[in-house]
Amino acid sequence: MVIYGRNPVREAFRGRRKVLRVWATRATERESWLSEALRDSAVDLTRAEPDEVEALAATREHQGVCAEVEPYPYANARQLYAPDDALVIVLDEIQDPHNVGALARVAECAGASGLVLPERRSAEITPAVCKASAGAVEHLPVARVPTVADYLAGAKQAGAWIYGAAGEADTLYDAPDYRGKVVLVMGSEGKGLRQRVADSCDALIRLPMAGKIQSLNVATAGAVLIYEILQNRLQRQGPS
Amino acid sequence: MVIYGRNPVREAFRGRRKVLRVWATRATERESWLSEALRDSAVDLTRAEPDEVEALAATREHQGVCAEVEPYPYANARQLYAPDDALVIVLDEIQDPHNVGALARVAECAGASGLVLPERRSAEITPAVCKASAGAVEHLPVARVPTVADYLAGAKQAGAWIYGAAGEADTLYDAPDYRGKVVLVMGSEGKGLRQRVADSCDALIRLPMAGKIQSLNVATAGAVLIYEILQNRLQRQGPS
Repeated sequence: MVIYGRNPVREAFRGRRKVLRVWATRATERESWLSEALRDSAVDLTRAEPDEVEALAATREHQGVCAEVEPYPYANARQLYAPDDALVIVLDEIQDPHNVGALARVAECAGASGLVLPERRSAEITPAVCKASAGAVEHLPVARVPTVADYLAGAKQAGAWIYGAAGEADTLYDAPDYRGKVVLVMGSEGKGLRQRVADSCDALIRLPMAGKIQSLNVATAGAVLIYEILQNRLQRQGPS
Repeated sequence: MVIYGRNPVREAFRGRRKVLRVWATRATERESWLSEALRDSAVDLTRAEPDEVEALAATREHQGVCAEVEPYPYANARQLYAPDDALVIVLDEIQDPHNVGALARVAECAGASGLVLPERRSAEITPAVCKASAGAVEHLPVARVPTVADYLAGAKQAGAWIYGAAGEADTLYDAPDYRGKVVLVMGSEGKGLRQRVADSCDALIRLPMAGKIQSLNVATAGAVLIYEILQNRLQRQGPS
């Protein structure tokens, strides 16, 4: 797999999978992050013209650098909810790589346990997702599951509370007590949660909407929810 | 100006500026939102082939519809902080239209007073920003100012508290009391706030970071901050 862009390549050097080869333009190869990463590893750099990097990356968004890396090391989905304070983010058929990447970036920054994607009708961890995540997927555990509803059933049996984000929910997002194992399910922007997935949730939650347009982007809504869960846990731990 | 895409065109019909003409493909012209909007207005629809819409919109992301609309009606920047509970979002030299659009969408959904952009080195309200905002800019007041620091000085004189988002800040984002007039300043992803802008803030605030990558996308970070301000106000109003 050839990943591209500064952040994705830098984080691949710091992450779990092996970097096999790097191509960089004359301008980019002088950047200190790259020379440091190369010095600390045994990876070869090939100097390339911008159009060669573009051809290897198959996109113009390469920022002068790309790297051949091992296949993405997917995590074990059940292990993600093992910790007592697990926070697992499940994306129900989100196909836009920008949204999957953006949510992975938020989840990693916030210290979530991991991200779960269904095997079908979902973006997987492609180079475009790596780029949109700013390399966060090299650190965040990401797992794939055959069916979301079965995964949620297993998490529930293991003691997790399942919250689904849904615009039509009765419960405001800041009402629940989010301590303990939590799974947060986000649906696709157009269709929301599938019925069987919504039925698998313990509660549906929503953000308050005060404007004339009635829908947030799934990545920004997910960011608000993930940070609320963290803040809510800290506040409830505080006084007890 | 020719805007494109379902949400931008639909919201333009519901918004402040006049829609002058619409082009749609055979498939899109049958969609109910469009036939309803046309029925309630005196606007002519021209049926067009997909490549004609692409040429008019100058992008492939047109979803089969585009519209000629009046120039964007910028708001008066000073009026945005007139209300006692104003919440004004200032973007300091954010150039990516996706980020400006995403922040406008969150600001509109959350009921913020408006968005302020500097006249130089910033995206303005282009068709790409309209698309990225899902049409939110047709409802949200957006103003342009010659210099951000001068604007912040005026807001401060009018009684606003100025918060700047900065990764290196000492204050966590949930510590302040956000009641009253508030201005939130977001810097560009690469460079953050300019020094003179940071110096104009009453406080710098940050989100907690628990992962290995140390930066959120500016749109997701802005979403978390905007919703925190709203929630913080409601909670502090509650008991008093």
